[in-house]
Amino acid sequence: MLINKGDKLMLIDKKVSNFLDELASNSPTPGGGSVAALVGALGAALISMVGNLTIGKKKYEGVEEDFKEIISSSEKLRYELSRLIEEDVKVFNDFMATYKMPKETEDEKKVRAEKVQESLIEAAKVPLRVAYKCLDIMILSQETAEKGNINVISDAGVAALMAEAALESAMLNVKINLKMIKDEKVRTELSSSIKEILLKEKGQKEKVLRIVEQKIR
Amino acid sequence: MLINKGDKLMLIDKKVSNFLDELASNSPTPGGGSVAALVGALGAALISMVGNLTIGKKKYEGVEEDFKEIISSSEKLRYELSRLIEEDVKVFNDFMATYKMPKETEDEKKVRAEKVQESLIEAAKVPLRVAYKCLDIMILSQETAEKGNINVISDAGVAALMAEAALESAMLNVKINLKMIKDEKVRTELSSSIKEILLKEKGQKEKVLRIVEQKIR
Repeated sequence: MLINKGDKLMLIDKKVSNFLDELASNSPTPGGGSVAALVGALGAALISMVGNLTIGKKKYEGVEEDFKEIISSSEKLRYELSRLIEEDVKVFNDFMATYKMPKETEDEKKVRAEKVQESLIEAAKVPLRVAYKCLDIMILSQETAEKGNINVISDAGVAALMAEAALESAMLNVKINLKMIKDEKVRTELSSSIKEILLKEKGQKEKVLRIVEQKIR
Repeated sequence: MLINKGDKLMLIDKKVSNFLDELASNSPTPGGGSVAALVGALGAALISMVGNLTIGKKKYEGVEEDFKEIISSSEKLRYELSRLIEEDVKVFNDFMATYKMPKETEDEKKVRAEKVQESLIEAAKVPLRVAYKCLDIMILSQETAEKGNINVISDAGVAALMAEAALESAMLNVKINLKMIKDEKVRTELSSSIKEILLKEKGQKEKVLRIVEQKIR
């Protein structure tokens, strides 16, 4: 996978050990938002792996076409979540930049307040997109657990666990930003998205884990 | 962080994007076991980050010593989990090697069966170690949520979410191997470790998230 963005080395192009070092450091980015996107991508990759270890096997001929579609979806989700690792850093930095704008005159205060609000909305939308994509992964992990190669079926369970943790982490990040957003229309939209995601997520991980646990018993 | 192991490039020394590519591929390693260790390490790193953004701030003088200890623990856990990413691949490969041993003669069958059993036990012990370390992270994330810099408190919640998902993923990997282990003494030991971890884990993530949600409300 190649995600190019000019000359700057993106997080995804760094070594795993360096990513961990930067995460642990006293810089707020990358933070929990990028971790959510990365862990969602790990979940998507695990679904692709189960798919790739199912396709081409005589025993699983009957589900070959299903898995071609599953892999096509999981690889798309993996790519999108990989981009969102970086996007989360960008919107946080944009927010910090607006926060540091001058606020001496009344005019400056007004412009700054508007820009801060705009950047907060963008900063809430990124984790919301992460959460929706993780929801898709949780749903994909069910079909993967039902039909995938039994030898690696636990990995479908791990995919569901990762997607849920990533989804809930992303939701924490939506809520933090929501708290500071003043526009009532945007607040209502974000709140109803949160409700929708929580409703669709409910019980999904448990469903996948039940399927997996029955197969590995 | 530098983890050297001869000439071979370790997973942690690869680019994040390459790690994801290898995970998604039709090779069973790295798989869910390595993902569990990595995600545990991400959780540990987030605790270090909250600590590093708390230490040195006038407002948090009172908890400075606490956080020095927390960071010392979280960095140790991060290092150990980083090693376990690789260790999980190693024990899986060792298991596959014993599985492919010759089984033509009775002698060969006997030796192979013994070696398979030995490698299965090792393959169960690695995710068990991952699970114990993630339990430690879940406990550390509570103190971090209680005392850490409010501006990054959601990251203590993300740390708890990551540690729980990693712990449960590791447990799936212990269970798969346990299923095939024949030694009754080892089976009993592993089962009682699983019970101990589940007991200590129960409610811990929820406790941390309640603290975080109250602070970001």
